[in-house]
Amino acid sequence: MVRWEPGTRERLQAAAIELFVTQGFEQTTAAEIAHRVGLTERTFFRHFSDKREVLFHGQHEFLQAFLDGIDAAPAEAPPFELVTAALRSAAAFFSDERRAHARTRQGVINHNPALQERELHKLAGLATTVAEALRGRGVGEPAATLAAESASTVFGIAFGRWIQAGEERSLADITGEVLRELVAFTGAAVAPAPRG
Amino acid sequence: MVRWEPGTRERLQAAAIELFVTQGFEQTTAAEIAHRVGLTERTFFRHFSDKREVLFHGQHEFLQAFLDGIDAAPAEAPPFELVTAALRSAAAFFSDERRAHARTRQGVINHNPALQERELHKLAGLATTVAEALRGRGVGEPAATLAAESASTVFGIAFGRWIQAGEERSLADITGEVLRELVAFTGAAVAPAPRG
Repeated sequence: MVRWEPGTRERLQAAAIELFVTQGFEQTTAAEIAHRVGLTERTFFRHFSDKREVLFHGQHEFLQAFLDGIDAAPAEAPPFELVTAALRSAAAFFSDERRAHARTRQGVINHNPALQERELHKLAGLATTVAEALRGRGVGEPAATLAAESASTVFGIAFGRWIQAGEERSLADITGEVLRELVAFTGAAVAPAPRG
Repeated sequence: MVRWEPGTRERLQAAAIELFVTQGFEQTTAAEIAHRVGLTERTFFRHFSDKREVLFHGQHEFLQAFLDGIDAAPAEAPPFELVTAALRSAAAFFSDERRAHARTRQGVINHNPALQERELHKLAGLATTVAEALRGRGVGEPAATLAAESASTVFGIAFGRWIQAGEERSLADITGEVLRELVAFTGAAVAPAPRG
């Protein structure tokens, strides 16, 4: 019988991140993480399939944030507005309380090529998911792929700035700025600032 | 003493691609490729570091094609013009004589996740290289990264269309079309979006 202890998952995650930071991701075992908070390795594996998942769980919620934005946009919204809506919804998902964790997590990832690889796939997966949603809204090709890749690029740049040391602007503000840069790049007039 | 036989590299490459197509990339060994054209495994390794390199050699020339376009652009060219110049130069590099080989190569890559991974890295490396060249031309951030990622996306989409079965337009024509779609995508931002 499995006794569910509230907060176990969060305690394991906090211990894991601390160990990843202090001694390195590779050098940390699932057993060590569990023992750190007085639990067994078996308990760890009831919460996470492996130690990598501590850093990459929540992929579904991450993608869903973008999709929710698209779903909520008006039926006749052109691709750029759908992308803006997706990015705005994602920016709301990454609230300021998440920033400290996101920074620490990124520090761990930056030290490990295999984790960087996985992160690269996450952004590629984001583009694929958004493109599919845009096609579902009647956007043709190559517009859907272009728009989805742009969404992924803008998100990647904005997120990278958001977690920079000393950065205090919200992800929504930074995303709006990067979107305007994208518009400026292609030579179009300055877009109205996205507002929630 | 190494006797250099003209065309050896090309013969090895043709044999390799044929074996990759008929029996699969994983199932093909360097020795097999070499024997196919009456050569030894040792000769194979004088031309390619491994069988994967048959598919990925020429990465330097590939990147250089983009950089040449940027180098040739006027000093005051804005980022979009630099990207257009880079893509036009790359399109000239992929002349129509290369199309059949590009199609076959892609077929091999599509059947193997590790090769797809490597291809994904190639496009990521393209974005990194172009971003660096743009910064070298005085383009700031995030404009340089946005422009470089857009270049990589447009190239990826255009190249994918160029090698589709039955496609006969040149890569330059397709690239121009995808670039216009990119402008249209962000240009839609100019139109005042209906807001409730």
